[in-house]
Amino acid sequence: MSAPESADSRQQPEKISLPRTSESESLKKIRHTTSHVMAMAVQKLFPKAQVTIGPWIENGFYYDFDNPEPFAEKDLKAIQKEMVKIINRKLPVIREEVSREEAERRIKEINEPYKLEILEGLTEPITIYHLGEQWWDLCAGPHVENTADLNPKAIELESVAGAYWRGDENRAQLQRIYGTAWETPEQLAEHKRRKEEALRRDHRRLGKELGLFIFADPVGPGLPLWTPKGTILRNTLEDFLKQEQIKRGYLPVVTPHIARTDLFRISGHRQKYGEDMFPLMAENETDREADRGFVMKPMNCPFHIEIYRSQLRSYRELPMRLAEFGTVYRYEQSGELGGLTRVRGFTVDDSHLFVTPEQLDSEFLNVVDLILSVFKSLQLKNFKARLSFRDPSSDKYIGSDEAWNKAEGAIRRAVEHLGMNYFEGIGEAAFYGPKLDFIFQDALEREWQLGTVQVDYNLPERFELEYVAEDGSRQRPVMIHRAPFGSLERLIGILIEEYAGDFPLWLAPIQVRLIPVGEDQLPFIQEVAAKMRSLGIRAEADTSNERLGKAIRNAEKDKIPVMAVVGAKEVESDSLNIRTRASGELGAIPVAQVIERCQGAIANYTNF
Amino acid sequence: MSAPESADSRQQPEKISLPRTSESESLKKIRHTTSHVMAMAVQKLFPKAQVTIGPWIENGFYYDFDNPEPFAEKDLKAIQKEMVKIINRKLPVIREEVSREEAERRIKEINEPYKLEILEGLTEPITIYHLGEQWWDLCAGPHVENTADLNPKAIELESVAGAYWRGDENRAQLQRIYGTAWETPEQLAEHKRRKEEALRRDHRRLGKELGLFIFADPVGPGLPLWTPKGTILRNTLEDFLKQEQIKRGYLPVVTPHIARTDLFRISGHRQKYGEDMFPLMAENETDREADRGFVMKPMNCPFHIEIYRSQLRSYRELPMRLAEFGTVYRYEQSGELGGLTRVRGFTVDDSHLFVTPEQLDSEFLNVVDLILSVFKSLQLKNFKARLSFRDPSSDKYIGSDEAWNKAEGAIRRAVEHLGMNYFEGIGEAAFYGPKLDFIFQDALEREWQLGTVQVDYNLPERFELEYVAEDGSRQRPVMIHRAPFGSLERLIGILIEEYAGDFPLWLAPIQVRLIPVGEDQLPFIQEVAAKMRSLGIRAEADTSNERLGKAIRNAEKDKIPVMAVVGAKEVESDSLNIRTRASGELGAIPVAQVIERCQGAIANYTNF
Repeated sequence: MSAPESADSRQQPEKISLPRTSESESLKKIRHTTSHVMAMAVQKLFPKAQVTIGPWIENGFYYDFDNPEPFAEKDLKAIQKEMVKIINRKLPVIREEVSREEAERRIKEINEPYKLEILEGLTEPITIYHLGEQWWDLCAGPHVENTADLNPKAIELESVAGAYWRGDENRAQLQRIYGTAWETPEQLAEHKRRKEEALRRDHRRLGKELGLFIFADPVGPGLPLWTPKGTILRNTLEDFLKQEQIKRGYLPVVTPHIARTDLFRISGHRQKYGEDMFPLMAENETDREADRGFVMKPMNCPFHIEIYRSQLRSYRELPMRLAEFGTVYRYEQSGELGGLTRVRGFTVDDSHLFVTPEQLDSEFLNVVDLILSVFKSLQLKNFKARLSFRDPSSDKYIGSDEAWNKAEGAIRRAVEHLGMNYFEGIGEAAFYGPKLDFIFQDALEREWQLGTVQVDYNLPERFELEYVAEDGSRQRPVMIHRAPFGSLERLIGILIEEYAGDFPLWLAPIQVRLIPVGEDQLPFIQEVAAKMRSLGIRAEADTSNERLGKAIRNAEKDKIPVMAVVGAKEVESDSLNIRTRASGELGAIPVAQVIERCQGAIANYTNF
Repeated sequence: MSAPESADSRQQPEKISLPRTSESESLKKIRHTTSHVMAMAVQKLFPKAQVTIGPWIENGFYYDFDNPEPFAEKDLKAIQKEMVKIINRKLPVIREEVSREEAERRIKEINEPYKLEILEGLTEPITIYHLGEQWWDLCAGPHVENTADLNPKAIELESVAGAYWRGDENRAQLQRIYGTAWETPEQLAEHKRRKEEALRRDHRRLGKELGLFIFADPVGPGLPLWTPKGTILRNTLEDFLKQEQIKRGYLPVVTPHIARTDLFRISGHRQKYGEDMFPLMAENETDREADRGFVMKPMNCPFHIEIYRSQLRSYRELPMRLAEFGTVYRYEQSGELGGLTRVRGFTVDDSHLFVTPEQLDSEFLNVVDLILSVFKSLQLKNFKARLSFRDPSSDKYIGSDEAWNKAEGAIRRAVEHLGMNYFEGIGEAAFYGPKLDFIFQDALEREWQLGTVQVDYNLPERFELEYVAEDGSRQRPVMIHRAPFGSLERLIGILIEEYAGDFPLWLAPIQVRLIPVGEDQLPFIQEVAAKMRSLGIRAEADTSNERLGKAIRNAEKDKIPVMAVVGAKEVESDSLNIRTRASGELGAIPVAQVIERCQGAIANYTNF
């Protein structure tokens, strides 16, 4: 039997890199023109169809149509066939500037009222793009010069979906056809492979199949409920980081999930971040008008600050590193929610370090070191650092120019000292301070934001934090906010996709499943499972009475890292016939040795 | 040096048991009459004082007065002196029935408008109690027959505080004088000793002194923030119970702190428990009027039910024991909040067991067994069981008579099977089912409710829960709700008071403090502390450079269970001079032996 496919495919590095629309003028033109070709094809086949808008997007393009009947899958095939014909006619793509009156006249001539509405929003010069002499649309371009510049074998229509005119659900319902277009057929093939791979790795599907978490309508969107297996996964990640943190002198704290609005007014969240918070809990109308009452916490910082300032602190107590796996709640629009990567309630592996100005640089480096070591244990290798600075032209930030400059300087010094691969993201800062964000790129070249470190001179000012320095004077500490995982929920979503559900041994909710060949082996496997559990290995005995083949398939479906099949021979020799997700069949291994290898792999974050 | 006082006093059992007002007719009469005597004394000394109401309470009595000047502490002395005089005059206490008109006439004669207002609320017959011929008040009695029945040496005025007439802050501010009265001077002495002891053990004071938790105004009342030391205490208790639960087949889950109101409408919480919930989070006025939006969870049950019903379950999966340390929020009136025993946010060591009807009795017994073993480890010995049943005359419950009878029957069978000391509390049930509550009595004979187990046929009905039985039919499971601690916050409050801050070794946030005689011993104690920490002992080296005497006093103030003083002799012999809170001076003990004894005491929940 061959090794499991998923484990195999993870080993192979991706060969083809795909250009991004946003970074390729050529791709923009190709997609833009292809969308016009599609619209022309649609109107040829469906003369009653009216065209509205059709932009390029990250992986292709779309066009919205008003058609009496919804398009079916088979219509897409016919449209694509018609598109090939149009392309093969080598039509020139011609740009024409016209006056508003002339544009209006021509639109009325072909009786397309949507275009009239679009025209209202345009500023002169009004431009029209023609495909030969057969078809035109209002459009700002740019386009390729001739449809012959498009490769029909690099184009594919993908799907059709409903969409509202102007995105307004009170207006006409339109039909949106999505397609993709590339420079070469190889790029299209790679795009399709990635789409399929993304589907295979989709954490929403895998999360359900592996029984890790659920969503429930009466609870609400974006609020995951963690099942027993998912909770083991969460707890394992939490415990792992907690142990690392204890070694590094972090102090655990626990704080409430709500506070009076007063707290967030002092911190500035209420003023700068209010729209992202859940609605106010007010006793009555008067309180509501005065914004008086309780709110869910969108961040943990002000709570840790309250603990810091509950006593007069001495320089001897600094750096003070308060840490909490704090669950925060943010009122994301329900349309933006999806799986674990965008949720309304999530747990931040949060810590706030209160340091003297002299300790800032070394503590910042310690934090980055911790984050890098966490990523290493998680086998996340492909990431870069983004220096998220403020946009000096925006007013969404609090704090003085001086404080911002000092904080941004500390971050730049750190990444330069470490020789890290970084870029600057202007306007990406938090409202109270600049950040160092870790951007992870997965096997499909998708980017995810993970850990973050922030330097903050502002909240210490707003909360008037102090410590008694060695000379007896009162000084203001600097704060570092940091979260290696960022959001535990999001991290788990990313890990599920990155591992395609095949968790490394230390993270797998069930690490070993023992399968008996027949009922006679049940007592033996139950005894071995109990022994493994007592030694800290998450082992379970399959007592389902299923046929062997079915039991093995179940273990594969559940992506159990280590499967141990036990027949009479194994019982006699006190051994287990081992098959792993990572390396396939390993044959009979003595029980004691299996246990030892499991413990070693768990301790080293590797596979069996 | 003697053993620490607190440890000593905990060993001595209380000798005198005090009667309760609620259970002693004699005490009620004594306190009632004493309050009249006090009122008469006050009006003698402060002729402008008007009397309002003056009932007996659990530990004494009070009277509210309207007086132009607030009473001072020294006034209480004078009043008490005057009371002794009145008592010694052996005045008969005479009951008189009068008509409403006659009562009104007499009140007007002495010009006491509060009495007029009280009279309005009385039904006939109106009774007046006279103290001899000198003083009278409207009163329903009962009273002793003569002031000579009061023992002046068993009476003491305790304090004075502001109070509003009718408890309404918009009405007159009154002066409330609290006093206590007993049958014998010995009882008074015991009462005073207990008051002092309660103050010494007060968890609010100790929580602050030992640095376990804080409250912060901007966060809000009843919402504790756990400092590093308090968090260690919490985590230790959580980990302890989690380990016990894993052994017994519980499955951990994690659920959100909020849900749509829909969830709590299905469960019935919204209808029956709505007043105890935090205000609605609604997007707008329309949603608010429709009660549509999110609410903080007051209980975890509906979330665990959603996990149960996210899949079709088989009888093979039952009993399914879902467990979570779930933080819930209840909108207690802010006046009712105090320390950790009454809070607005607290963590329930919650579990919901989904069982077949046949499994109910044995699973219920397993739960009670777990709770009893938890109490044993916590050294909580003095408790009884309350069977909290519904009050059949109330409509605050959901579910059929049949379901209630079945559930109450299961609980009664369990306590009888176990031969437990129990009593029935009619009207004490949760709205969805009856409970078995564990009532703990502390060293001061105060009662606290701890763990609880509930049997529930109603929520499975409301959520239409099912499982596939062995014969393939769909059946309804029964639920058991249970929480051995009840509330983690409350438990910690009670433990602080029960231990008077002297935690047993396994719970102490800092278990060992190593104190050097001089700077020369610093490297040694730091090395020993690091070694202890690597072996799971929470040890710290005192590097404060304080004089030895001060350092020892600090360790005593911090109630560190094991203090190790290290001089040159100890370094040379690789030993520690040990002094414990529980047993005082133990002399020099080799380091290895200290570690071994610590580990043993921690594992066995005992002291060093």
